[in-house]
Amino acid sequence: MSDKLTTEISQTTETEIRWRGQDLMTDILGKRDFAETMYLLMTGRFPEPWERQIFDACLITLMEHGLTPHAIVSRLVADSNPDQLQIAMASGLTCVGDVFAGTMEGCGRLLQEGLAADDKAQWCHDTATAYRQERRPLPGFGHPQHKPDDPRTPRLFQVAREAGATGHAIGLLEEFGTAVDTVYGRHLTINATGAIGALLLEVGIQPEIMRAIAVTSRAAGLTAHIAEEQKTRSGRRIWTLVENEFAYTGP
Amino acid sequence: MSDKLTTEISQTTETEIRWRGQDLMTDILGKRDFAETMYLLMTGRFPEPWERQIFDACLITLMEHGLTPHAIVSRLVADSNPDQLQIAMASGLTCVGDVFAGTMEGCGRLLQEGLAADDKAQWCHDTATAYRQERRPLPGFGHPQHKPDDPRTPRLFQVAREAGATGHAIGLLEEFGTAVDTVYGRHLTINATGAIGALLLEVGIQPEIMRAIAVTSRAAGLTAHIAEEQKTRSGRRIWTLVENEFAYTGP
Amino acid sequence: MSDKLTTEISQTTETEIRWRGQDLMTDILGKRDFAETMYLLMTGRFPEPWERQIFDACLITLMEHGLTPHAIVSRLVADSNPDQLQIAMASGLTCVGDVFAGTMEGCGRLLQEGLAADDKAQWCHDTATAYRQERRPLPGFGHPQHKPDDPRTPRLFQVAREAGATGHAIGLLEEFGTAVDTVYGRHLTINATGAIGALLLEVGIQPEIMRAIAVTSRAAGLTAHIAEEQKTRSGRRIWTLVENEFAYTGP
Amino acid sequence: MSDKLTTEISQTTETEIRWRGQDLMTDILGKRDFAETMYLLMTGRFPEPWERQIFDACLITLMEHGLTPHAIVSRLVADSNPDQLQIAMASGLTCVGDVFAGTMEGCGRLLQEGLAADDKAQWCHDTATAYRQERRPLPGFGHPQHKPDDPRTPRLFQVAREAGATGHAIGLLEEFGTAVDTVYGRHLTINATGAIGALLLEVGIQPEIMRAIAVTSRAAGLTAHIAEEQKTRSGRRIWTLVENEFAYTGP
Repeated sequence: MSDKLTTEISQTTETEIRWRGQDLMTDILGKRDFAETMYLLMTGRFPEPWERQIFDACLITLMEHGLTPHAIVSRLVADSNPDQLQIAMASGLTCVGDVFAGTMEGCGRLLQEGLAADDKAQWCHDTATAYRQERRPLPGFGHPQHKPDDPRTPRLFQVAREAGATGHAIGLLEEFGTAVDTVYGRHLTINATGAIGALLLEVGIQPEIMRAIAVTSRAAGLTAHIAEEQKTRSGRRIWTLVENEFAYTGP
Repeated sequence: MSDKLTTEISQTTETEIRWRGQDLMTDILGKRDFAETMYLLMTGRFPEPWERQIFDACLITLMEHGLTPHAIVSRLVADSNPDQLQIAMASGLTCVGDVFAGTMEGCGRLLQEGLAADDKAQWCHDTATAYRQERRPLPGFGHPQHKPDDPRTPRLFQVAREAGATGHAIGLLEEFGTAVDTVYGRHLTINATGAIGALLLEVGIQPEIMRAIAVTSRAAGLTAHIAEEQKTRSGRRIWTLVENEFAYTGP
Repeated sequence: MSDKLTTEISQTTETEIRWRGQDLMTDILGKRDFAETMYLLMTGRFPEPWERQIFDACLITLMEHGLTPHAIVSRLVADSNPDQLQIAMASGLTCVGDVFAGTMEGCGRLLQEGLAADDKAQWCHDTATAYRQERRPLPGFGHPQHKPDDPRTPRLFQVAREAGATGHAIGLLEEFGTAVDTVYGRHLTINATGAIGALLLEVGIQPEIMRAIAVTSRAAGLTAHIAEEQKTRSGRRIWTLVENEFAYTGP
Repeated sequence: MSDKLTTEISQTTETEIRWRGQDLMTDILGKRDFAETMYLLMTGRFPEPWERQIFDACLITLMEHGLTPHAIVSRLVADSNPDQLQIAMASGLTCVGDVFAGTMEGCGRLLQEGLAADDKAQWCHDTATAYRQERRPLPGFGHPQHKPDDPRTPRLFQVAREAGATGHAIGLLEEFGTAVDTVYGRHLTINATGAIGALLLEVGIQPEIMRAIAVTSRAAGLTAHIAEEQKTRSGRRIWTLVENEFAYTGP
């Protein structure tokens, strides 16, 4: 306990700010973009151009998906705290949880396991069979709205391949998807969070931190919802709408 | 109350996702970056190249500033909820409040007022005098660590001017800074959040939404802190450190 | 900075836990109730019996008020995080803000000012007149649903008086209410949060901490909403309901 | 989807407020206390006197435990948001998670399983053996500070028995504790959250809602920490203390 805690992220003096050794003023501002800088802070180095494109595509895809619980919660909390937008943002972001973003993390973990297997075809078949038998939800598969296929998935794969990804994780996910269809006897779409789990693996991001990337991405989208809320004031009407939908059935 | 609530942000069908009318698959992914897409969602149009550079520089500057309360809180909450990163993110982001980001919003409001004044020199002198007499904190001025000047401010001004900003808001902030030094009889630095308040005005972002941009930006930095926390496990030691610093002085 | 931080709240050894000097095992558990113990932790002493009754009535009154934003947010966040109830609770509690609980704090501050005035009748008239002229919302007055009077207010006053409160703050609020009606030329009800602001002053609780008491109280009510949510699963249907109410009007 | 959502919690008209059918003004305020009213809202009936005593003891025990992460986080967030106590409360309460309160829920689930077993002695032995072999943490056992025994546990058992609990869950937890000591070959204390898991089962509260009760309870204690923070302003010094403990070891 005598030694100090350590950090490798940033260093600040009166006149200088360095992130991972890079000078904010001369190496980053005006030269690097959001995705490159976030990748630098997370990993300790700037991404290669192909990594930047893939990481940026992942960050963009999750920004926005309409009137989801995240947006509804942010609008309601903004109505209760109109001058404190950080509360509306924070509360909305808590909806990025096991239900709506865990699939990214879960799919990433699954693919990591598959990438370490010697016989990939065998692993795909065995894993799909196990999930089906145990009736467990398959992380990264299925979507309530996008049928038969989530349109984001093939585009994300294309962007990654055109950028120059090795395609190990993407290819495995595609192979696994085919095995899933065979084993289940029907087509299950690979959804966007599943695809992002594969893309983030391609650029060296570990599953255990993937959810924080989803939170950052969704923060950008919630900013737009809160900006709209400041004009349209939907929060009060959402409240009334929901309240009126409830019937009291107690004693 | 009979008419519907409205949103102009996004539209989703089974096979298509459009944000502000732009097709996510063909117009955005692989073609636009994080800053452009966030600006689109917020304002309804893609930024011009010069706007993109300025908006991106603002998003980057606030990502990270070391072991601030945001990072300490996120690390502690991550230690209590190791599998639920969204909680650590959300709790850390609540520290973007009146104390540490309100200056951006406040400085933006002040500059808006000044931009509407006929005699800018008079406005600068009168406003600085009023704040000094009422001993109110000047939003966008002063920094505990960066003395005599916050190094981010001149670099941000430079980036914005080289990108092609009109410089109305930036110029006014500089002029106001000179008036402040004269009226106060000592040099007060324009800090980074003050500078960002001016830059965001240059690209048409209103003060009332500026704080949400700070939240989005800081989310990226907290992602790096949480990734480091997963390796170094500082949370438990921060707890012990703080606990031991408290002496019980009750009955 | 060389001296330690201090706390007067609690002290723990391997075998003993003392709160404000009281032994948890022998002085509190089995002998004192929730309201007494919370009051002890906040103030350093157990309340007198009359103070206990008033403080408890305040804690109970705010527990629950139907499908408010707090409850809707908690239900939505519980649906996104079914195994992490602390997130649903925390997010719902952020709705106890300037809009829905600030009136308690604001009314408490107003009454403190009035209690310090020499001529109470003059203060009531002047204050009501000032608020009306400046068209500022009167903290502690008005209620969208309870008309002409909030039924909780007279009952809270009665409970406090029967318990043995001096009635200084309550009496002033009643007098102020009469002045408000005269100055505004119509009846404005004193609402429950206004009444609670007065009751808490009667038992020595300062306005600046009142909101945290509201948060604690509402936590109990949200527990009931989340318990019901676990059975009825309303979150998903609230989402659909709200989503369907929005019409896309963008490009 | 055509039928309405339902709630059995409360019903409000212009002049009346009923919680679970009880009139707030005539049946609750001035007649019932915090624990009774919370129990009513959660379960639909007032507790019997013995249930009230046990439920109240559970609520009190978890209120406070010194400078834990909950309190540290609340103090830091209060320093960043001095006028918005709900944020400090909410952020601190998120630390009631899998690490520090999940044991209550987990222990409750374990006991439910044991209560359903035909041969309790066999179940105790088998379960302790399984946890030891799989090296899984035993929910409700062990405490870093309280050794050899958590002093709250025997007092909680005593309060519950004197109140008149059947003792089924408590007795099973004691029996299980003895089996644990035998199987592990050393003494593991039953901690307070384990004991509370048993007590809450005695009064009919299900494991899946137990954590929300811990959140409510801890809210009361955090109120005291925030009240102290308003006087001592420890937040800024905690920040400095932690920041200075970190050494930069990056490039």
